[in-house]
Amino acid sequence: MPDTATLGLYGLGTMGSALALNILDNGFALHVSNRSSDAVPLFVEEAGADGLADKLTGSDSLDAMVNAMPAPRAIILMVPSGKPVDATIQTLILLLAKGDTIIDAGNSDFRDTIRRTKDIEQQGLTFIGMGVSGGEDGARHGPSIMVGGSPAAWNAVREVIEAIAAKFNGEPCADHLGPDGAGHFVKTVHNGIEYADMQLIAEVYGLMRYGRGQSPGDIGAVFDRWNKGALESYLVEITAKVLQATDSETDQPAVDVILDAAGQKGTGRWTAIEAIRMGQSANVIEAAVAARAWSSEGAARTVGADIYDTPRGELALSDVDLESALLVGRIVSYAQGFRILTAASDEFDWSIDSARAAEVWRAGCIIRSALLDDIASAFRSDLPEGQLIFADHFVVLIRDALPALRRVVSGATAAGHAVPALASALGFLDTLRTARGTTDLIQAQRDFFGRHGFVRLDGRKDQHGPWWD
Amino acid sequence: MPDTATLGLYGLGTMGSALALNILDNGFALHVSNRSSDAVPLFVEEAGADGLADKLTGSDSLDAMVNAMPAPRAIILMVPSGKPVDATIQTLILLLAKGDTIIDAGNSDFRDTIRRTKDIEQQGLTFIGMGVSGGEDGARHGPSIMVGGSPAAWNAVREVIEAIAAKFNGEPCADHLGPDGAGHFVKTVHNGIEYADMQLIAEVYGLMRYGRGQSPGDIGAVFDRWNKGALESYLVEITAKVLQATDSETDQPAVDVILDAAGQKGTGRWTAIEAIRMGQSANVIEAAVAARAWSSEGAARTVGADIYDTPRGELALSDVDLESALLVGRIVSYAQGFRILTAASDEFDWSIDSARAAEVWRAGCIIRSALLDDIASAFRSDLPEGQLIFADHFVVLIRDALPALRRVVSGATAAGHAVPALASALGFLDTLRTARGTTDLIQAQRDFFGRHGFVRLDGRKDQHGPWWD
Repeated sequence: MPDTATLGLYGLGTMGSALALNILDNGFALHVSNRSSDAVPLFVEEAGADGLADKLTGSDSLDAMVNAMPAPRAIILMVPSGKPVDATIQTLILLLAKGDTIIDAGNSDFRDTIRRTKDIEQQGLTFIGMGVSGGEDGARHGPSIMVGGSPAAWNAVREVIEAIAAKFNGEPCADHLGPDGAGHFVKTVHNGIEYADMQLIAEVYGLMRYGRGQSPGDIGAVFDRWNKGALESYLVEITAKVLQATDSETDQPAVDVILDAAGQKGTGRWTAIEAIRMGQSANVIEAAVAARAWSSEGAARTVGADIYDTPRGELALSDVDLESALLVGRIVSYAQGFRILTAASDEFDWSIDSARAAEVWRAGCIIRSALLDDIASAFRSDLPEGQLIFADHFVVLIRDALPALRRVVSGATAAGHAVPALASALGFLDTLRTARGTTDLIQAQRDFFGRHGFVRLDGRKDQHGPWWD
Repeated sequence: MPDTATLGLYGLGTMGSALALNILDNGFALHVSNRSSDAVPLFVEEAGADGLADKLTGSDSLDAMVNAMPAPRAIILMVPSGKPVDATIQTLILLLAKGDTIIDAGNSDFRDTIRRTKDIEQQGLTFIGMGVSGGEDGARHGPSIMVGGSPAAWNAVREVIEAIAAKFNGEPCADHLGPDGAGHFVKTVHNGIEYADMQLIAEVYGLMRYGRGQSPGDIGAVFDRWNKGALESYLVEITAKVLQATDSETDQPAVDVILDAAGQKGTGRWTAIEAIRMGQSANVIEAAVAARAWSSEGAARTVGADIYDTPRGELALSDVDLESALLVGRIVSYAQGFRILTAASDEFDWSIDSARAAEVWRAGCIIRSALLDDIASAFRSDLPEGQLIFADHFVVLIRDALPALRRVVSGATAAGHAVPALASALGFLDTLRTARGTTDLIQAQRDFFGRHGFVRLDGRKDQHGPWWD
């Protein structure tokens, strides 16, 4: 068969293979390759079994792949982030010609993407940093895709990207969100929100399990019900499923055979770090990152349980209270994520449209939820102080649910249950609704010990306290 | 007068002048200079008025200063961190000779210090990165000094440093804590703990002021009493003073004329960021950094107060409960700070002795407190899992005070008062005393959507859930 594919995909791991099948499934010709060439015939076989091998070609090396493809070519990289991406790019730059495009579709650090865009485009090539969310299933059947690059680069790949993306009411969940690192940054923040939402869910699960004494299966059924209401979302849906799953070896609930030590690959940390750096502390995301870090200290927690052995107390919290608390926590997570997006967009001059980011997340990705359509609307209307928690739609939700979040945090902390993310959401809301806070005291202390000065309420700057008279 | 000073100080700002007077007060000859040369005669006059000009010489430029001083010279830089330090070093390198020493005594980023040490020592010069804490008064009468550099560098300046440092039971609060960036890193963590302690104090103040309706003066009197007990510390001492101070213009309590928008110069953020990067989330420090960030959003808080206008409720918390809560919060802040020190020391191969860092902080610095001597002892004995909260001495304190922290957090969150740092301390303790947490659910979710795999409780790795069968 003559090779007509101008689109290539390099890296046939779990996500790469799924994305390749998705591309073929949408009728595009595709040329694939992989670092270890064994994977190529295996993938061709897999695609054939699905009836998707018609427009598929493959090569056993990058070199052969580029040589086989007619120009202008676009090569999607699905390789591990960091050094493997740089190494692949180094090789590709020598093989490609002016007008060709490299697309990094991995979870790259957006700073790397900014650097790579500059380096690669200096060579006359085009570069796209593309965030892809949705896990294996999303990659196969329609992920959410966040594209960073030049408008010309976007135009070159738009047809394929929109075709393979998830659809929300027929609209593709993919868009060009800004130049160079913008796409990977939006994906990073997506993952930060994902961390927060997962931690909030885990805390609510913990209260039901250890505070109300329910079984995982029963709790899963509650999540199932919640997924039909305001909490409708992929993460609540799969929580219901995993909690109701049984381990076949032991006949126990599946979660009960799993070590409680959560892995992380960096994007949650990156989000928290960038937020702090930009003065936009996202405390619910921070709490989620912290919870994963501490989860890996199992030995310490065992010692701690022995030393501070007051048992966690029973909780009389209602389903409705827990549901409401989780909803408010989720809204705050999104609100904090979007604040980070806005701050970074300002700093890096990306002009990211928050409403479009929200729309791109409405289907295909891990944090897709019923809230995102309303979030997009909120960003399209007048948003006081740019804060989602002040948008009319969310004010109604939060006002209604805040007392429940209070009861949950207050009850859980009194009874000895750790709810760091829920408590962080509440701390954020209570801080943002306090016109007169207590940092006047902090300013007084700073002036006392370091003569830092302060602003008086009447607006006069660089003032000092009477302790300096 | 012939110039015999081999010690120089460049940068006669508030801190630089205070440190220079301290050096002269201890009988050392000193040569001073400043970027704007006007400051030099003014300083000579000031020193003369204090009877400290005998061994003082000055020059109106770096050039003249170096030429006037006999070798080997040691020049202390007291210039703003960042570019000014680099610029001064660039000039100095051209002027100094082999065997001379540059000492950066500002609040430099430890990564800059690592880089500068390498660059400067390649030129045959010696470099010391030195953290100095204590504010203006500390610099003048005895600060806490954290030195990073080679053992030879330390020996060259040890006599002066130990002489000018604060003393605790006659022992100088200064030491060589490790190579290159170690001194500035310890100072950074010091500041992170300082942020946390100040925020905890501000929260407790807020509960007394807005939850118990007390006046700043009355609250100051309570802090005064606390300063004679377990909370004895510089920060509690000055809190008592500033709360009892009156603004002379308005006759109001001094804190009441101050805008509640807290400044920050970066070290608190650096601490939080480094902690997250190293997987050591220091959530109380993070909460303090967040509180300062949000304090600067006064307009948003005013909108928020209008929208979410349920008033903060009355609190029936006792003085003893608030004192205990603050004590536990403080212990957790120190514990998290020392975890960061240990992690960084491991990563950068600094071999920092945590007990010595604690001892150096016992006097002179902003976070000096009655706890530090016990912290040093704890690090010298067997410390389970390297966690200060598991040291016998602190276990007794925490066990005793934890129920009070619970009552405070639970009560405050129920009544609508923001206590993010206190809640974070409690969240940390409750997480670290939970042998079986809830991240098993997070691992199940990650495996469900991303096929990430998990460890089974029996130790088998890379396992998948029944959802993949």
